[in-house]
Parts: sequence; structure tokens; C-alpha cells
Amino acid sequence: MSPKTDRDEFARIAHFFAPLASASEDALGLKDDAALFETGRVREMVVTTDALVARVHFLENDPPGLIAKKLLRVNLSDLAAMGALPRAYLMVLGLPKEVGDDWLEAFALGLREDQETFGVTLLGGDMVAIPGPLMLTLTLLGESGEEGVMTRSGARPGDNVFVSGTIGDAALGLNVLKGGLVGLDEVAADFLIARYRLPEPRLELGKRLCGLARAGTDISDGLAGDLGRICGVSSVGGRINASRVPLSAAARAALEREPSLMEVILGGGDDYELLFTAASEAESEITALGDAIGLQLTVVGTILEGEGVSIVDDSGAEIVLNNLGYKHF
Amino acid sequence: MSPKTDRDEFARIAHFFAPLASASEDALGLKDDAALFETGRVREMVVTTDALVARVHFLENDPPGLIAKKLLRVNLSDLAAMGALPRAYLMVLGLPKEVGDDWLEAFALGLREDQETFGVTLLGGDMVAIPGPLMLTLTLLGESGEEGVMTRSGARPGDNVFVSGTIGDAALGLNVLKGGLVGLDEVAADFLIARYRLPEPRLELGKRLCGLARAGTDISDGLAGDLGRICGVSSVGGRINASRVPLSAAARAALEREPSLMEVILGGGDDYELLFTAASEAESEITALGDAIGLQLTVVGTILEGEGVSIVDDSGAEIVLNNLGYKHF
Repeated sequence: MSPKTDRDEFARIAHFFAPLASASEDALGLKDDAALFETGRVREMVVTTDALVARVHFLENDPPGLIAKKLLRVNLSDLAAMGALPRAYLMVLGLPKEVGDDWLEAFALGLREDQETFGVTLLGGDMVAIPGPLMLTLTLLGESGEEGVMTRSGARPGDNVFVSGTIGDAALGLNVLKGGLVGLDEVAADFLIARYRLPEPRLELGKRLCGLARAGTDISDGLAGDLGRICGVSSVGGRINASRVPLSAAARAALEREPSLMEVILGGGDDYELLFTAASEAESEITALGDAIGLQLTVVGTILEGEGVSIVDDSGAEIVLNNLGYKHF
Repeated sequence: MSPKTDRDEFARIAHFFAPLASASEDALGLKDDAALFETGRVREMVVTTDALVARVHFLENDPPGLIAKKLLRVNLSDLAAMGALPRAYLMVLGLPKEVGDDWLEAFALGLREDQETFGVTLLGGDMVAIPGPLMLTLTLLGESGEEGVMTRSGARPGDNVFVSGTIGDAALGLNVLKGGLVGLDEVAADFLIARYRLPEPRLELGKRLCGLARAGTDISDGLAGDLGRICGVSSVGGRINASRVPLSAAARAALEREPSLMEVILGGGDDYELLFTAASEAESEITALGDAIGLQLTVVGTILEGEGVSIVDDSGAEIVLNNLGYKHF
């Protein structure tokens, strides 16, 4: 086998990644054992870490630049879910031997573009050879805004349950990539795939929900599963009205052809929209917020006394899902 | 196949890892998308991230508690290398399906013990199924002390090159675990294996070297390779006198049986001792520091004008190593 690179770990870091850290003196040019992080006047940082694994979270032939952006964005979404402002990140790349410099170059370019989009900078990391599939880990450091943070634990009976954007697109997009949804028109299929590959972290929404919403999270494990977690942590129950769940035109087209896809839409993950609850008095203010930032915010259900999440149709009859959210184990 | 667990990801986190985060309200009980980190009056944080991969950094049948401690300690060593004080960590576990609850329980117990030893707490993390070998990633957050931090970049010609402790033990220990060093007595073999499996982060030394040493790092890629990195970043050269490199009794015994092991000792990694340079005027102060903290500090070489690292014997003749430091790619 011919090696895909003549560069060793340090040369690869210097060539591909040091430029991503050059805007920050804190990164020390990626030449030290650790990096500095100036906290300035910030008293409370918000930190998160999330991994993507080939064959689990992305497909091995996905474009490297999109994988890079998804890695950054799933972590950005965690900060969005708390209403925090992202600042800098550290990254560990577990790379199989087959990953060559071409792949790294495209990966680094994706990071560079999203660093500019979201105003974050690389602080440090590690690169290791792994005798298995690609595993990418990112730790994101941010700060809370003036209103503090939004957590999963504040939902109360009577709250409206809101979602941003449209639901189910990413799960349907994965379905397309795996050869499903045959016959769906190409524009719709491309839209769904793009929603799977390139989530849009709702940072502006999250920031503005602090002090306005009572509980919130991002939808990474599926609408039903993630509402279940809010309810569990808040010691309340929840009900989703399936007909109110906002769908994209592409998802509607898919659903018309195959009504059983409702299960994928409600149970599938990876949308990275925000899911939050708010007192009913806040409804008009939240609607106005959606208008102000150009993002659809829809009431899809209600928080109740009790526990557990039920999904009902327009007649009030319960819809039972077999698979509430992606389970790793 | 019978599953090794009835617990899903969230139940595993709640059962095994939430107790490790309970000392810190900032972790929000591991129930949220991200964690908080109170910076208090700290203006400068120090952050690092490092991964361990099965079959690369540890052997799959190594005791899980020791793997946990090594994961924490290699990151603690990065903060020691900069003279920073550790505070909290985030962790991503990439687990093959075969990893059962017994393994996680022993792993979590190892973390608990080292959390107490080093005064750090779990802030958050992620757990993913991985279709490959175990991959563990940890991000450690700390703060710089009053004297700031030590970096790799300050070495100057004429500086003494110091190491802490003894060199080469870990690489020899790995050699034993792989079936090498046959005939070495059992006590020596056990000592070397322990040095490989359970590094001792030199946090107290690192803290006290700030303002006293000119450049420093920890030895994770081998004495020769890590000095090479200090020299590269500092734009100087270096010379190591092989006969001055401090060896444990076990390493000496191994070397007597097989003199070619000098290459393993000088080039092998994973000792996690500190390697630092200091002006010759500081030598007596550094000796006194070693006495004060009960840690052997030895001059092993000199910083020179120029570039590159050479290793010489007592006659001044150069020793050429084939393998300077572990290379991942």
C-alpha cells in the first residue's frame, strides 16, 4: 500500500489546522500542550462536547467539508439549545490510515468556512490513528448571555410546546441516502439530504429565548424523544398534536406517498431545530420573535401534569411510535 | 448475541457518570445540552484535549479503571506541562457494542478515584456506539497560576535541559506487555508496566516551574522527539548526553541485559515526565525545588544555537536513533 501522506502528525497539524487557529493568539499556534482561553469579564462559560462517527452519524463517502461543518454545527446547536454564544473549539480527529491529505484539506476548508459563518476559532486538539472508522470529537467553549442560559428543567403544566423550522427533514434525508423514498422528485430529495448533512444551529433564536422560554433543547434524538427528556427532567408530562407538527414541502410530499413515514418524522433525529416550552402568555411575544428573526416558530403541543409524552391525532386518539429517538445501546 | 446491557445511553449516563458530576452544580446533573463553568475571577483558562484509542494507546484487556485514570492523567499531564491547575473535564466515550456495564462500572470507579486525587470534576460528555475499537476523548479545563504559564517556545542557547523522574520506563513497560524483555525479574517488569499504565502528572512541578523554567513540555512522544519540538518552536538546537539520562533500577536492569534498548529509552514515549529548559543560573534553585517536592530533577543536556537535536555518548560521539518519537501517520 502506498501511503496517502508523507506528512506526520505534527506536519499535518501545522499545514491543515494551524491556519484555522491563527486568528487567536490563545491557541499558541497549536504548538503547545494546551491552549489559553481569555475569559475576560465572562463569569460563566458554557461548554459542550459531541462526537460524530462514520457509519453512525455520517456516511464514509460524505463530502469531508460537510462532515466538518456538521461536526461543528451539532456542537453549536448544543450551545444554541442553552442560548449561549460560541467562542472557540478543540477537536480530536481519530483517523483511519486510509484518510489522506486530500480528505484533510477539504475537511479543513469546511471548518474555515464555518468558522467565519459562526465566529469561532480553533484552540487546540489531537490527531490519532485509529484502527476503525473515522471518529471526530469536538469540544465547544462559549459564554452565556446577559439573561443567563435556558435549560431542560423549567417546563410547567400549561406551557405551550414550540418547535422552530420544520421537523423530520433530516431523518427523511438519511432515508434517501440509504436508498429509500424511491420516486420522490429530485428537488425534494436534495432538500432533505441537505437538511441531514448540514444542520442550521439556531443560535440567534436560542439567545433570544433566554428569559422568555421556560425550558428548551435542540432536537437531536427526535421530537418525541427530546420532548420526553424535557418532561423527565422537569417532572411533567407532554402531548404533541401530530397534525400541528410543521413539515417542509418535501416532507409533505414524502408523507403523501407513504403515510407510515410519520413515525420517521416524529421519532427520527438530527433536525437540530429548537424545541422549547413557554407560558401561554408568552405566545404573542414568541410569534413576534419568529417574525423578527425570520424563523417559523410553531406550537405543536402542551405540557401537562404527570409524566411521559403522548402523541395524538386531530381526534385526540393516541398515535403509538415504536421508536422514540435514536438509541446507541 | 445477548446484550451486555439493558440500559440505553441516557440510563448509562445517569447511572455511571452523573455521580461523578454531582459535586458540581455547573454540570447540571449531566441533564442538559451543555454544562456551565464558573470562571470566577480567573481571567485565563488553560484547555487541552487528548484521546486514547484501544490497540494504539492501551491494550483492550487492560483494566478499565486504569484506562480511565490514564485518560485523565495524559490530559492532566498537558496542563502540568504548562504549569496550569486542573478544574473540570468533559469526556466522549466511543464504545463498541461489546463493552458492557461491568466495564463501565470499573471505568467510572477509576475516574472517581482520580477525581479525588487530582481535585477535578466531570462537567459533561457524550457516549456513542462505535463500529470499531474503543476511543476515549477527554477535554480538560484548568486555570493558569499567578506566574502565568510555561510554553515550549522560550528555550535559549546555553540553557540546561532538565527532566523529572526517570526516562524510558513506560516504553519498556509496553515492551514487556507485548511479550518482550523476557527474563527480566518480575518486580522490575511490574514496575515498568505500572509506569506505562499509570502515568503521574507532574502538576506540582509544572506549577512551580512557571517563571523559573524558560520552556517546557511533557514527555509523551519520547525524550528526543519532545526536545526536538521545544527546539523547533524555540528556533534553537539541543544536545542530550545519553549517559546522564536518569534511569530507574528496572530500566537499568533491562538495559544491562540488552544494550540496544537505549533506543527505546530515548525514543519511546508515554513517560509523562516533564522536560524543561532553564538558564544555567537557575540550576541550584531547580535542584532545591526537586528536593522540596521530592522529585528527582536531572540535567540531561544543553540548548545550542542552530537547529535539531543530537544525542551524544560520554566521548562526545553521536548516537543515531532510527525512531524519534511515536508517529501516528
